[in-house]
Amino acid sequence: MKLLCSQSDLSTNLSLVSRAVPSRPNHPVLANILLQADAETNQVSLTAFDLSLGIRTSFSAEVWQGGAIALPAKLLVDITSRLPEGEITLDDEASVASTGEGLIVTLTPKSGCYQLRAMSAEDFPELPIIEDAEPIHLTAAALIEGLRGSLFATSADETKQVLTGVHLSVKQDTLEFGATDGHRLAVVETTNESPLGGSGELEVTVPSKALRELERMLAHHAADDAIALYLDQGQVIFEWQNQRLTSRTLEGQYPAYRQLIPRQFERQITVDRKQFLSTLERIAVLADQKNNIVKLTIDHASQELTLSCEAQEMGSGRESMPAEISGEDIEIAFNVKYLMEGLKALPSSEIQMHINQNLTPVIFTPLGGLKMTYLAMPVQLRS
Amino acid sequence: MKLLCSQSDLSTNLSLVSRAVPSRPNHPVLANILLQADAETNQVSLTAFDLSLGIRTSFSAEVWQGGAIALPAKLLVDITSRLPEGEITLDDEASVASTGEGLIVTLTPKSGCYQLRAMSAEDFPELPIIEDAEPIHLTAAALIEGLRGSLFATSADETKQVLTGVHLSVKQDTLEFGATDGHRLAVVETTNESPLGGSGELEVTVPSKALRELERMLAHHAADDAIALYLDQGQVIFEWQNQRLTSRTLEGQYPAYRQLIPRQFERQITVDRKQFLSTLERIAVLADQKNNIVKLTIDHASQELTLSCEAQEMGSGRESMPAEISGEDIEIAFNVKYLMEGLKALPSSEIQMHINQNLTPVIFTPLGGLKMTYLAMPVQLRS
Repeated sequence: MKLLCSQSDLSTNLSLVSRAVPSRPNHPVLANILLQADAETNQVSLTAFDLSLGIRTSFSAEVWQGGAIALPAKLLVDITSRLPEGEITLDDEASVASTGEGLIVTLTPKSGCYQLRAMSAEDFPELPIIEDAEPIHLTAAALIEGLRGSLFATSADETKQVLTGVHLSVKQDTLEFGATDGHRLAVVETTNESPLGGSGELEVTVPSKALRELERMLAHHAADDAIALYLDQGQVIFEWQNQRLTSRTLEGQYPAYRQLIPRQFERQITVDRKQFLSTLERIAVLADQKNNIVKLTIDHASQELTLSCEAQEMGSGRESMPAEISGEDIEIAFNVKYLMEGLKALPSSEIQMHINQNLTPVIFTPLGGLKMTYLAMPVQLRS
Repeated sequence: MKLLCSQSDLSTNLSLVSRAVPSRPNHPVLANILLQADAETNQVSLTAFDLSLGIRTSFSAEVWQGGAIALPAKLLVDITSRLPEGEITLDDEASVASTGEGLIVTLTPKSGCYQLRAMSAEDFPELPIIEDAEPIHLTAAALIEGLRGSLFATSADETKQVLTGVHLSVKQDTLEFGATDGHRLAVVETTNESPLGGSGELEVTVPSKALRELERMLAHHAADDAIALYLDQGQVIFEWQNQRLTSRTLEGQYPAYRQLIPRQFERQITVDRKQFLSTLERIAVLADQKNNIVKLTIDHASQELTLSCEAQEMGSGRESMPAEISGEDIEIAFNVKYLMEGLKALPSSEIQMHINQNLTPVIFTPLGGLKMTYLAMPVQLRS
């Protein structure tokens, strides 16, 4: 293998794939990035894989001699990212014979020479493929919206297994993202641009770690870029342009969350999202001192929503804001963290709260635009 | 006490002084910020003090009733910084009588009301003062230069006592900053703009924590702002405009570092500082894998400086750069961290290395401008 490429192409692509290199690999080869160079197409592909999450990217280079080799990820990323802009050659030829101690790759920037111990490409595990599957097509924008509105509500507790992922449901015309940690629930419905054939619905739960990487990789893509999504029960693959992300799926039955969402409500409140959120952030300073509980007082007569918190040892706070209120007065309390996280993820400038009683599920929806539903459970108000 | 001020004045000044609030206070009152309001001058001053470092600032406000009170630092800073721009009233009147449980301060922004438990101003310790001392006058620029060129070389090891501070020596026309952790030494000489009278020289060692806060506070000041410096053996005070920083000094004899600096050298190398530093950063990736040692090869014939590292298990690297070299060829090795930190702090685009033998102290100086000396000890080169 021998090739010439630009420092920026190599460094950018290395830093993308290196996110899938495990910090504590089970096998030494997993601490490497697989480099494959094709002399016919003049394409170089890089792959990292922790046996659950896999990322592959490719870019153009001048490939003098094709081949494949597994390169130490951390050293290569750290050195390449610190090199100045310019051309770099990568070569594993000369040194094999001379050292007799195994593979060495030589990295030659303009003014120096780095030799790194490498491993055989044959030791590197194959990325999973899904055969005979028809992809679902999504725009980058729809995928980003779905991830942004659901990922935050997954559980961070690894023992909760299926709840650490986002549940994707492919229906006739829609792709639905659902996430819950047992305390709150977020659901986003986006458009599936390739209506399903006779195969019915598909459902799969994808680890949030893989989806966070996907969100990061898509952040720099144009909103209407097409993303192909391949699903089966064990694997999911996202593919676009020169990049591919694969992930195993999570096993286990995902909760039937739709039945948790009430259909009728006794009270409805429309309020400015940013004002609600910034007020909560101030009240949270006091709530942090106690049990994280904030009280909402909904006053129909004055058409005002009041947030308050009493942290007896430290002090108390209270702020009011205008709201459009239908239904009777009520006092209701929430964990301030669940309220803030939901409000941050809701995509509209005004939001609606739909309330029945002070201990039944409360639904938050954006006003117009994206179809998102956020459910938070109120808590007992202790005085 | 009752006053009206702007959110931005209150928040900016609170965040400045809060740096001196201890994270684990020995006494409850130290977790507070002392607020003093003067109805005659319409000035509000804020003070925080951890019994070693003290910071005081003041700003203009509409003081309706003067007074002093100690306010809970964390709550006040966190709430005030999250409030929108606008007017705020602070008031400790009404609530004292009504609660009967001690002091409460009421913070009233435009759309809400916060009540925080406070403490009596009488419990708050007095900031130290230095009586009968003539101040030394410095510009902000000179002080920042001195701190920037010395603070990085102090020891982070609290058991090293006097080495955790910067040693300030006031001489007839100069103020010298010296710092060493036992492995390297940084010395900066700046101009003392108020020549001493008959009192001779003054020396004092100031904790680096206090000087880092000073550096941060001065970062937004004009280069020619005048800073007054009061010194005695137990305390040091920096004072400018509406701000003051006090610190206890460190006890113990500071090493006589001047005698460590050689006066004559057998070799001299002039090199571009940024190129030297960025090359070191790449070689450091390999050095990190082994013992942090980088080898410098100085070649008179080719007028080249070569940096290299062999990390046998991982690989090796080598880069060369042009240099102006006088004296014979030599190989010399350093801890890469000490070399990088010194090069970062040197203020010129080109620097000079002054070398005798491969195990004697090496001196780094900037070319032109500021008078800074950096001394690093070479290490044994193991092959």
